[in-house]
Amino acid sequence: METHMENNKMLYSHVSVDCVLLGVNEDKLCVLLVERKIDKSDEKHYKLPGSLIFENEDLDTAAYRVFNEATGLKRVPLKQFRSFGSPSRTKNKDDMQWLENAMKLKIERIVTVAYLALSKIGRKSNPTNKYNSLAWFPVDALPSLPFDHKEIIEAAVEEIREWVEKEPSIIFDYLPLKFTAYQLRRTYEIIYNKEMDVRNFHKKMGSLEYIVQTDEIETGVAHRAARYYRFDKVKYNKLHSKFNKN
Amino acid sequence: METHMENNKMLYSHVSVDCVLLGVNEDKLCVLLVERKIDKSDEKHYKLPGSLIFENEDLDTAAYRVFNEATGLKRVPLKQFRSFGSPSRTKNKDDMQWLENAMKLKIERIVTVAYLALSKIGRKSNPTNKYNSLAWFPVDALPSLPFDHKEIIEAAVEEIREWVEKEPSIIFDYLPLKFTAYQLRRTYEIIYNKEMDVRNFHKKMGSLEYIVQTDEIETGVAHRAARYYRFDKVKYNKLHSKFNKN
Repeated sequence: METHMENNKMLYSHVSVDCVLLGVNEDKLCVLLVERKIDKSDEKHYKLPGSLIFENEDLDTAAYRVFNEATGLKRVPLKQFRSFGSPSRTKNKDDMQWLENAMKLKIERIVTVAYLALSKIGRKSNPTNKYNSLAWFPVDALPSLPFDHKEIIEAAVEEIREWVEKEPSIIFDYLPLKFTAYQLRRTYEIIYNKEMDVRNFHKKMGSLEYIVQTDEIETGVAHRAARYYRFDKVKYNKLHSKFNKN
Repeated sequence: METHMENNKMLYSHVSVDCVLLGVNEDKLCVLLVERKIDKSDEKHYKLPGSLIFENEDLDTAAYRVFNEATGLKRVPLKQFRSFGSPSRTKNKDDMQWLENAMKLKIERIVTVAYLALSKIGRKSNPTNKYNSLAWFPVDALPSLPFDHKEIIEAAVEEIREWVEKEPSIIFDYLPLKFTAYQLRRTYEIIYNKEMDVRNFHKKMGSLEYIVQTDEIETGVAHRAARYYRFDKVKYNKLHSKFNKN
């Protein structure tokens, strides 16, 4: 570690929040982006919903303000997941010029506190007119993004995978109450962005007591009708009961 | 959510890092604090190891600098766990005066990025002379602390409990390679700060395949000699294998 004695002026910085909203559609893990208003440009420019925070705001308040302005959604729990403060995140001149024009402020460094939320795609949103539009983009096919927003989204995707690993029940929020083995596998494949071995998946699924067969099978399908399963929260909680729940 | 239209000046703030190092001793969950240098005071004043970040530093670099200055320890993985930015965290005049004297800077708000690490107490440390001294304090018997350091420590304790719940193997880092049921239970009790029912604990422990009986029992003890157990990482990983590990 270098001590940088020659350059240890204390950082005086703007602080922002950025919100990463991830959703699963039938094929892709997607992130919600907003369209920036840029003068003299016909191109569309997207970014994460975000804002510098106000002098009298704390971080969570700013995050909910930003999220609500962008989506109109309330009651979506936002979780702070990481702060990004590399000096290089504000090195791009175009980004900084856009920001200084939009904010009418001289800006040097910005430390941003990133928040993460999950949402089913298609939930009715009602954004304010702060942005031109908003749109879902697959996380593996992002448009060009300002600052380190691509890095923030990549970190959020890693984070959501960790959440699902550590708290597998999250996955069932993305599924209908009754789901087929195929639907469950596809949801995992979408979140982890990789194909899974079908036989191993079924074996693993069969070993999990909280995934319960129902008596129902698909109807009206061209292929062989698949059985429906359901998530048994009571069994799940029992299996995941910890020492401290004694 | 209020919009604070009347007071939406953008925050321009100093940014700091604070490091929470938690350790388990035989009786208590403890946190490492450093003694502040305060003129004209014989009292000892403690705080979390922390620092404003330098202009050319990113957050992680600053955290490792602070941690290393305070403890001399290297190779302890620090994990960013939350940022604290409430306007009220810098409202105490004594705190601010101390900080401005120490930094020779005019300071208004500070957003701090908190890092968390676990360490066995007693690990050899070799601090720099930035602080008068450092000491471990039980998290339930903290001295008076500046800013929101008490709140940060409380959040870190919640965080560590979550880590242990979601990744139970962490607990074995705090135990000898061979441990008794009593030692395991005490470590849980210390981290969660509550007594556990002995019978339920043994039952739960018996159900966990990765806690393996050895042939050895305690020697040279006055009470009835207890059996030693060990942690079986292979079985643990198998049990905790996730769909995505297919």
